[in-house]
Amino acid sequence: MIIDRLYEKVQQNGNSCVGLDTDIDYIPGWLKEKCQSVEESLFEFNRMIIDATEDIASCYKLQIAYYESYGLKGLMAYKKTLEYVKSKGAISIGDIKRGDIAKTAQMYAKAHFEGDFESDFITLSPYMGMDSIEPYMDYMKNKNKGAFVLLRTSNPGAKDIQYISTDSGNHVYDEVGAQIEKLGQQVMGECGYSSLGAVVGCTHVDEGEKIRAQFAKTYFLIPGYGAQGGKGDDVKVYLKNGNGGVVNSSRGILLAYKKVEGGEKRFDECARAEVERMNGDFRG
Amino acid sequence: MIIDRLYEKVQQNGNSCVGLDTDIDYIPGWLKEKCQSVEESLFEFNRMIIDATEDIASCYKLQIAYYESYGLKGLMAYKKTLEYVKSKGAISIGDIKRGDIAKTAQMYAKAHFEGDFESDFITLSPYMGMDSIEPYMDYMKNKNKGAFVLLRTSNPGAKDIQYISTDSGNHVYDEVGAQIEKLGQQVMGECGYSSLGAVVGCTHVDEGEKIRAQFAKTYFLIPGYGAQGGKGDDVKVYLKNGNGGVVNSSRGILLAYKKVEGGEKRFDECARAEVERMNGDFRG
Repeated sequence: MIIDRLYEKVQQNGNSCVGLDTDIDYIPGWLKEKCQSVEESLFEFNRMIIDATEDIASCYKLQIAYYESYGLKGLMAYKKTLEYVKSKGAISIGDIKRGDIAKTAQMYAKAHFEGDFESDFITLSPYMGMDSIEPYMDYMKNKNKGAFVLLRTSNPGAKDIQYISTDSGNHVYDEVGAQIEKLGQQVMGECGYSSLGAVVGCTHVDEGEKIRAQFAKTYFLIPGYGAQGGKGDDVKVYLKNGNGGVVNSSRGILLAYKKVEGGEKRFDECARAEVERMNGDFRG
Repeated sequence: MIIDRLYEKVQQNGNSCVGLDTDIDYIPGWLKEKCQSVEESLFEFNRMIIDATEDIASCYKLQIAYYESYGLKGLMAYKKTLEYVKSKGAISIGDIKRGDIAKTAQMYAKAHFEGDFESDFITLSPYMGMDSIEPYMDYMKNKNKGAFVLLRTSNPGAKDIQYISTDSGNHVYDEVGAQIEKLGQQVMGECGYSSLGAVVGCTHVDEGEKIRAQFAKTYFLIPGYGAQGGKGDDVKVYLKNGNGGVVNSSRGILLAYKKVEGGEKRFDECARAEVERMNGDFRG
């Protein structure tokens, strides 16, 4: 089960998930000048970040929107980055938040669990219901793949739908979580967590302990750290013995060099220092 | 406003939205033999369908999952098909169901309202909240673009989240609809509908009249007709004087030729006959 591999990576390397939300504007001028195209610039930047962090990162999350925004050339860089992550023996998360049903979902599964855009985990949106999640289960059972379903996200708008109170006294996200945890029973790893995980933002800590206990077998992908305001102590609430979740940071890592004098030339080392700092923040 | 253009197309051509969910297996052997690649086969099939239906279709909806499943080559066919729809003066819907926030949403907007994958409308998923919809509004206000947000879909799993009863006596989808209708006020067209529409399946007719009245300014993209069980009378409940919605059919149109002896050779004519039949079914 892929979740056991992720669990082990966290044990060895720490909780930090490096978010490769790579905007061309993030890339230092000297590197762009060395490259012949947008595609090459995006890939080379990612490659250097991966080389500098592979032994201290739990996984790499690629936000596909950034690559889609550069069209076919951007998606070529997305493909090459995923292949590079794989060649390093590292774990990738395709942050695609797809959500559709039946044959369409099967097509998304084929797109992101095989072929050009193959990744180890993907993210999914549950609004259409559990029949928008089930078509991916076969890959989780038989092909060593996993997914994180949006549960309670880190943005202010999370209240608009996820926090709606239901007539049974829960929030909508409680119902979603219960359905995910139930479906996840089909793909339990030896580590005690399921390969079907959930996205839970760390910006709302008040119900953190409740959520961790309520969905005890669900592994968390945790956004909201750093740029969005979440702190190390906010994250710890969602972990169990230091595991049970990976914590994403994107700009915090990719742009760490901007806080260092002369950092442009060694943006990769600055990224590494930030990942080390993060790991300490969660374990400290 | 793009919604006025769509409204006019429906007045002239009828309600049928041709769903270009093009699977390589749908394409007759003789056409595939004439083509040099998957990319060319997908595009040529789409081109012939478009040529055969442009004067009787309201718009063309491309389900991007089908193209993503063929990787970069598939997405090249997606791009070429969108360009072809545009060159014909027809209206395109990129059925992408993206849903993300802040800069990520801006990147999706750039990806699908400009550049390689530019379409007139896109579909969006609301689970993350209204701040996952707002980043697209600027394109709707200033660049003649529109969107359809998932509200109440046509699949059985719709009950899992969309039908949850809230403590104020509504369904979750009622709350979503109210938020969409409110946000949509910013992009009202002269036709009385907003460029921010909603996806409402026609497979549940019981609350149809209520939904049509409740969201009177919201234009509907209506899936579920044909293959999923919806009938002409089910659709009419969601229309107002024959307008107010476009009705998608994909396999029903693309595979119409399979019901006709010798249909393979003239799959495009069979598609046209099916669109004509559909138009009659909604207006009859």
